Amino acid sequence: MDKTKKKNVITLHESQLSYLRQIVSPQRMWVRGEIPEDYSHDELGGITEYPDVLIKVESTEEIADIMKYAYEQELPVVVRGAGTGLVGAAVALQGGIMLETTQMNRILELDEENLTVTVEPGVLLMELAQFVEEHGYFYPPDPGEKSATIGGNISTNAGGMRAVKYGVTRDYVRGMTVVLSNGEIIELGGKIVKNSSGYSLKDLIIGSEGTLGIITKVILKLLPLPEKSVSLLIPYQTMEEAIETVPKIIRLKIAPTAVEFMEREVILFAEDFLGKKFPDTRSEAYLLLTFDGNSARQVEAEYEKAARYCLEHGARDVFLVDTQERKDSVWSARSAFLEAIKASTTEMDECDVVVPRNHVAEFIRDTHELAERFQIRIPSFGHAGDGNLHVYICRDELVEEEWKEKLEKVFEVMYQKAGEYGGAVSGEHGIGYAKKAYLNEQAGRVSMELMRGIKAVFDPKNILNPGKVVS
Amino acid sequence: MDKTKKKNVITLHESQLSYLRQIVSPQRMWVRGEIPEDYSHDELGGITEYPDVLIKVESTEEIADIMKYAYEQELPVVVRGAGTGLVGAAVALQGGIMLETTQMNRILELDEENLTVTVEPGVLLMELAQFVEEHGYFYPPDPGEKSATIGGNISTNAGGMRAVKYGVTRDYVRGMTVVLSNGEIIELGGKIVKNSSGYSLKDLIIGSEGTLGIITKVILKLLPLPEKSVSLLIPYQTMEEAIETVPKIIRLKIAPTAVEFMEREVILFAEDFLGKKFPDTRSEAYLLLTFDGNSARQVEAEYEKAARYCLEHGARDVFLVDTQERKDSVWSARSAFLEAIKASTTEMDECDVVVPRNHVAEFIRDTHELAERFQIRIPSFGHAGDGNLHVYICRDELVEEEWKEKLEKVFEVMYQKAGEYGGAVSGEHGIGYAKKAYLNEQAGRVSMELMRGIKAVFDPKNILNPGKVVS
Repeated sequence: MDKTKKKNVITLHESQLSYLRQIVSPQRMWVRGEIPEDYSHDELGGITEYPDVLIKVESTEEIADIMKYAYEQELPVVVRGAGTGLVGAAVALQGGIMLETTQMNRILELDEENLTVTVEPGVLLMELAQFVEEHGYFYPPDPGEKSATIGGNISTNAGGMRAVKYGVTRDYVRGMTVVLSNGEIIELGGKIVKNSSGYSLKDLIIGSEGTLGIITKVILKLLPLPEKSVSLLIPYQTMEEAIETVPKIIRLKIAPTAVEFMEREVILFAEDFLGKKFPDTRSEAYLLLTFDGNSARQVEAEYEKAARYCLEHGARDVFLVDTQERKDSVWSARSAFLEAIKASTTEMDECDVVVPRNHVAEFIRDTHELAERFQIRIPSFGHAGDGNLHVYICRDELVEEEWKEKLEKVFEVMYQKAGEYGGAVSGEHGIGYAKKAYLNEQAGRVSMELMRGIKAVFDPKNILNPGKVVS
Repeated sequence: MDKTKKKNVITLHESQLSYLRQIVSPQRMWVRGEIPEDYSHDELGGITEYPDVLIKVESTEEIADIMKYAYEQELPVVVRGAGTGLVGAAVALQGGIMLETTQMNRILELDEENLTVTVEPGVLLMELAQFVEEHGYFYPPDPGEKSATIGGNISTNAGGMRAVKYGVTRDYVRGMTVVLSNGEIIELGGKIVKNSSGYSLKDLIIGSEGTLGIITKVILKLLPLPEKSVSLLIPYQTMEEAIETVPKIIRLKIAPTAVEFMEREVILFAEDFLGKKFPDTRSEAYLLLTFDGNSARQVEAEYEKAARYCLEHGARDVFLVDTQERKDSVWSARSAFLEAIKASTTEMDECDVVVPRNHVAEFIRDTHELAERFQIRIPSFGHAGDGNLHVYICRDELVEEEWKEKLEKVFEVMYQKAGEYGGAVSGEHGIGYAKKAYLNEQAGRVSMELMRGIKAVFDPKNILNPGKVVS
């Protein structure tokens, strides 16, 4: 299925290619047929288009030079990290130039006095985590996809599991270097902790999915690494019961690091996918609660309070996930959910809504009703602690037409429900191409006009990731 | 001294006043001579102008009605909270309409499941803190000025003492209702923890000092109230020695809640001003370190580690601030520093720069050199933990001309030095009118053009707080 409209796909003239070959090493430039298939889509599929030129960029200055030329020639430019996105944001819908950042993957500086790490955008999340942890530090944002680039994480303001306690990527970006659509280079923020110096352009770039500027260097905030981390795996009779407990746990005034929910069906897919056993699969639904801190005693006090509450309020058991073996088994399953669901069906599409945490149970109930009503499979998992759900609509054996029709109707109800609960279209995957219509609906005319106005200020020729987010 | 240029001061026609009297209760509207002197300036002085009409607003809808009319008639509108600002942001430089929000001071909802409190913008910081603490919750941002409104805090992205551990106001704003310059009402964010749904308009409004929109309702994030909080007062021979210790304390991988520095001179002013004794005044310089948490044992372990390090590295003593009496004595002094310095001189101006925390000692050394070189008194205090300094240039007995000349030269060097250290013009007081030139210099042409572009998108007729921040 190709959802994109095949118009305005820009191919470069020979003279334009020649110019690019002068400013970029030909070893890092691919043209048309030379471009690997991977670069025509992201991780969801359904949205495909090849760029006309692929450049693996190496430096801020090189990107600035390319952008100056692209601006002059009005060529569309799409920036891509590891291509792990789920909404088509890194697909070159209008052809033109794709800049791929994975070769800009140096960790430039660990500053232990300012608690910052300075990195290039192509550093992978797992590389960053490993590096800082080796030095006794902690980069709290923890999206499921560890092989995403940090530039990609910033571009979607990725959240991850620990948002309930530690916040999202936005909260950890202290400074950045950005190349604008006309090739100008600006520095935003820095190593400073506070800033009240004009409008926060940095916060505009965060979450803008490559439509306002190109992030070429980032300064991230770190914390000292918590010494102790323990999880509880808590089985429930039903998903509603499990999730309804979560706001009550929050009311206990303990601060869990993560509160994930998972359905048996999804866990079984992950077991199959990984060929690895999960500690328990006898119940319909599970909560996975994590607590961290520097004092074993305090972490214990918190998880015991949570465990007691859960046992007194419907939990069937509480499994302590404290050995390395159990941690591996639980977290490798959790990390494999997306791939496992994908492997369980022929095609799927996803909904990444976020709702206030005390509406998660209702929303999941709605998805169950939709599955029943439309006779379609809708497995889900996600962050019960922060209200961000990952819901997958599976095609299975449906024929094309029926699949499209059901998908559209299911999405329509889901996004409408999320809005009614005070939620938003995307918690962390972004809008890209796939969710534009729903953003339009949810944000409303006035906010969308402001966003389009901002886009025009940053990118008057509409060459940066055109057709995405606000267009 | 009046730094403002007396041009374009807008007075309303009788018909315009009549219209406003129809949509606003006359008991809440003051015109020209009826307007109290307080409304002609903020807390710094030096920048004065009266609005032509003062309205104590009551609701989002009323503000929207006023803005619709102001937009149609192209009347300048300045929003004011408690008027505690230090950069002239809430002064009606171009006359017109002033909207004062202190009557919109209801706490609308405490949501213990989503850990949010919803308030009107005129709620004072101290009212908010008291309310949530009574319910066992914690609103971490803690600017020195407790009688500021929360709307004002958001408009300058105020930071306060606890930024080193907990972050700044921006990090606690989950959602807001905003009236735009044309009277349209938009909702941004909500009770949701994550959001990746288009450009973050919310983050643009935060810190925009009333130039992009009018905040009429806010949803703030809360934390559970830490059960234990202890401070250490640590005397040093010299300020440099004190401050140089701070980045080293951070390297110990403990997380202090606050790290304040204070000079003896300023403490003595506060003693005079309050008529209250400080625990110790025998040393030139002091650090005040705070630690909080839920486990007494852990808080103890942290502050003992810090105390040991300080004693081994130049501290003359360590005073534990754990009794209510000592807490009162230390924190009432800390809260009175600004007023005490003000009372010690005839006139003063301030510099609120922020630098990376490992450059604070150098910056303070620079201010000492400037004081020597220009023979002018420059007391300071501030947030050594987050690099945000409050530096006061005192006029004392200088004649007008000499004062202005010295002030300009001192500021020029200070902001230049801050820039060299990778700092920014304002950590938390904002730009307003007084710091525009320095923002222009620091942010540079390209970023300023982007900010002006954004201003034009939000406020095409330039009626919202004209002449401030970016103009």
